[in-house]
Amino acid sequence: MEFDTIAAISTPMGEGAIAIVRLSGDDAIPIVNRLFKGKGGKELKDVASHTIHYGLLVDPKTEEVAEEVMVSVMKGPRTFTKEDVVEINCHGGIVSVNRVLQLVLNLGARLAEPGEFTKRAFLNGRIDLSQAEAVMDLIRAKTDRAMNVALGQMEGRLSNLIQRLRQEILETLAHVEVNIDYPEYDDVEEMTHNLLLEKASYVRSEIEKLLRTSQQGKILREGLSTVIVGRPNVGKSSLLNSLVHENKAIVTDIPGTTRDVIEEYVNVRGVPLRLLDTAGIRETEDIVERIGVERSRQVLKEADLILLVLNYSDDLTAEDENIFKAVEGMDVIVIVNKTDLPQKINMDRVRELTKGHKLVTTSLLEDVGIDELEESIAALFFDGSIEAGDMTYVSNSRHIALLNQAYNSIDEAINGVENGVPIDIVQIDFTRTWELLGEIIGDSVHESLIDQLFSQFCLGK
Amino acid sequence: MEFDTIAAISTPMGEGAIAIVRLSGDDAIPIVNRLFKGKGGKELKDVASHTIHYGLLVDPKTEEVAEEVMVSVMKGPRTFTKEDVVEINCHGGIVSVNRVLQLVLNLGARLAEPGEFTKRAFLNGRIDLSQAEAVMDLIRAKTDRAMNVALGQMEGRLSNLIQRLRQEILETLAHVEVNIDYPEYDDVEEMTHNLLLEKASYVRSEIEKLLRTSQQGKILREGLSTVIVGRPNVGKSSLLNSLVHENKAIVTDIPGTTRDVIEEYVNVRGVPLRLLDTAGIRETEDIVERIGVERSRQVLKEADLILLVLNYSDDLTAEDENIFKAVEGMDVIVIVNKTDLPQKINMDRVRELTKGHKLVTTSLLEDVGIDELEESIAALFFDGSIEAGDMTYVSNSRHIALLNQAYNSIDEAINGVENGVPIDIVQIDFTRTWELLGEIIGDSVHESLIDQLFSQFCLGK
Repeated sequence: MEFDTIAAISTPMGEGAIAIVRLSGDDAIPIVNRLFKGKGGKELKDVASHTIHYGLLVDPKTEEVAEEVMVSVMKGPRTFTKEDVVEINCHGGIVSVNRVLQLVLNLGARLAEPGEFTKRAFLNGRIDLSQAEAVMDLIRAKTDRAMNVALGQMEGRLSNLIQRLRQEILETLAHVEVNIDYPEYDDVEEMTHNLLLEKASYVRSEIEKLLRTSQQGKILREGLSTVIVGRPNVGKSSLLNSLVHENKAIVTDIPGTTRDVIEEYVNVRGVPLRLLDTAGIRETEDIVERIGVERSRQVLKEADLILLVLNYSDDLTAEDENIFKAVEGMDVIVIVNKTDLPQKINMDRVRELTKGHKLVTTSLLEDVGIDELEESIAALFFDGSIEAGDMTYVSNSRHIALLNQAYNSIDEAINGVENGVPIDIVQIDFTRTWELLGEIIGDSVHESLIDQLFSQFCLGK
Repeated sequence: MEFDTIAAISTPMGEGAIAIVRLSGDDAIPIVNRLFKGKGGKELKDVASHTIHYGLLVDPKTEEVAEEVMVSVMKGPRTFTKEDVVEINCHGGIVSVNRVLQLVLNLGARLAEPGEFTKRAFLNGRIDLSQAEAVMDLIRAKTDRAMNVALGQMEGRLSNLIQRLRQEILETLAHVEVNIDYPEYDDVEEMTHNLLLEKASYVRSEIEKLLRTSQQGKILREGLSTVIVGRPNVGKSSLLNSLVHENKAIVTDIPGTTRDVIEEYVNVRGVPLRLLDTAGIRETEDIVERIGVERSRQVLKEADLILLVLNYSDDLTAEDENIFKAVEGMDVIVIVNKTDLPQKINMDRVRELTKGHKLVTTSLLEDVGIDELEESIAALFFDGSIEAGDMTYVSNSRHIALLNQAYNSIDEAINGVENGVPIDIVQIDFTRTWELLGEIIGDSVHESLIDQLFSQFCLGK
């Protein structure tokens, strides 16, 4: 395919040592060559691929020196986009990098849309759609584990698995076709029936395995939305502070509106907790007071994890019991805090209320029990059976939705076979499964979907 | 000189397409080589200088893939630090870049201190101190003009001038020495006297020229601290909005405390206005009310520019007159706003109060007059005589202080010669001037000063 030449700032905005303006396209090298003054009149168009060149950028209009730069020249197809790529490393800083961008735009490069570099890598066939999506996940990863998942996906772990399943389906369909066209044997119908059942069951179980990882995958990607509840004065704020203090909180911004903090992440042993912002957590005081009010229940219901805090040095109250009722059926860790004070709480009753949930006793004041709490949080979501590295996690909502549809479709096919539905009807469900899996890796997806997906990327990628 | 190998993240923190971890030192290439798995087992230690290599970083402990990277290998001395430099371009994002940094630190690189890369460039003799300082100014530049000044300084424009003056002084001193030791002529004393006077006057006038640019230079570098004053309801907020709206506001953060916005810059035709933050400007309402109160006067006195707003559709009040008194002797632009409404103000009296200051009439509501106001602001500080490009600006407070001392010292020498002070006494002042100029470019400066200067840099530079 052939596209125009695009350019964008590829490093985060802000004061840093280095900023990069990246160009991709046939004119990338000629454009930068017109600006570049290297030592001894070196011309960028003559240099070898994958080499770095020191020099000045000179504005051709004013003939003034615009910046001191290092220019990396990479010729396609051995590049991120498979096109010619030039990266201009300039001094960090807003004026400097904008000036360099302006110069290349003046000479005919077009400002890239968000994600357009990755989109070209996809359209030029270097990566498939799930790999492209992983690039963005990699950038947004909040923990090491989330990054490993994205990295695995980018390396094509998910793509390979999907492609293998699709190949399986395709071969089965071909086989069935042959059986129908050339019925050499008497038992051709039974053979076809058995073949379909076997292959469909295999595909279904593989999809099922993938879907089983999706809960963890989604949490790794989006964080575990966490609410701390408890009566006033049981230590909710201390718990929040302990979690933030022990683990560095990562605060992320919405790109473009840098002043609005929207997410606060605490990385607890590889599990990103997305804490409701401080204001949100303060509201949980009200939640307790207004327990039973529908809206308050709603806030709790949307949480992935409840940290329910009790006071060791106080009797259990009706309020406490109400909180237990409000969080019934959810993932809860019960924390009995203030063990540094004399016991007044009835622990037998606490254990009764806790049911199967994890119970941890802490003295946040004396820094006791926080380790066990963190282990409990991690254990809740990585229960030994799942180890980073040997699993293909599915973390992307689009992928999960498609896998669910594919599961239903292959399940339909199996039902059909078992209930003696004619083979050509079953084939339709089989084919549909093949198509749905294809959409995950970007085979036969609509252009509008592609545009929409890449528009969520950050600029310069 | 020989140093250990340092590493740091050289791009701003945040979500971006690309982040860079930079290493400098003898072990830079071996360290990255141990992590790097390129295609076909390529070894980074064997590659040519200034080349780029695609591959994976693999953690030698876990043997897990840690990142997909592009590695730039640059061998000294043709590098920023004159040492071997390796830049690892990884996917942007906090986890990714921290992971890469951690890997190189695990293998023995030391985390660089702020400014340590530039410090090495200085210590290894690639740039002098004023050039190193310009690197930081370049990153922090808020406008094109400020960037040109920094760029000129980094290219050595100031350094060259300083060196020329020092050479002049040195040659003069040598000449004087010869004259004294070998008095071949009778009029040797008069000759020496004339020579000293001529050379010293030249040096003084050159320093004076430099100092004349320092006001503009300092403003370009630090921004023009600007306060908008006026009675309530004259249109102060509208003026602020117009300035921010017409010109993009650049908001900068203190590194490390990303949530505290400290500066808001508006670039008005190349002049950076450092606006007191919105809260600060709202306080000017109070300033008017408490006019005459010492503290309020203080706020005004610290401003470089006062924008005094009056209401065209209202009579002048005692309050207005008080404001004029409070800003006496300062750089003021008087703005008569609301010309869209019927006139009530006495413009003759306004002109009287305005004295020599610039007077602009506006209707901010109808977008009238804002152009003229902006021109007035720019004209106040770039009065035609100064053009970017053909001047060596001095913008750094340290440089200005040293130039002032050098000026006094050479002035002392001239006075001495004129008043018949013995030559060997005059020589002392001459030598002192030479030393002071040397401190600007980092010749004979204390190590503690160097440490302190570079510690103001950002990480990774």
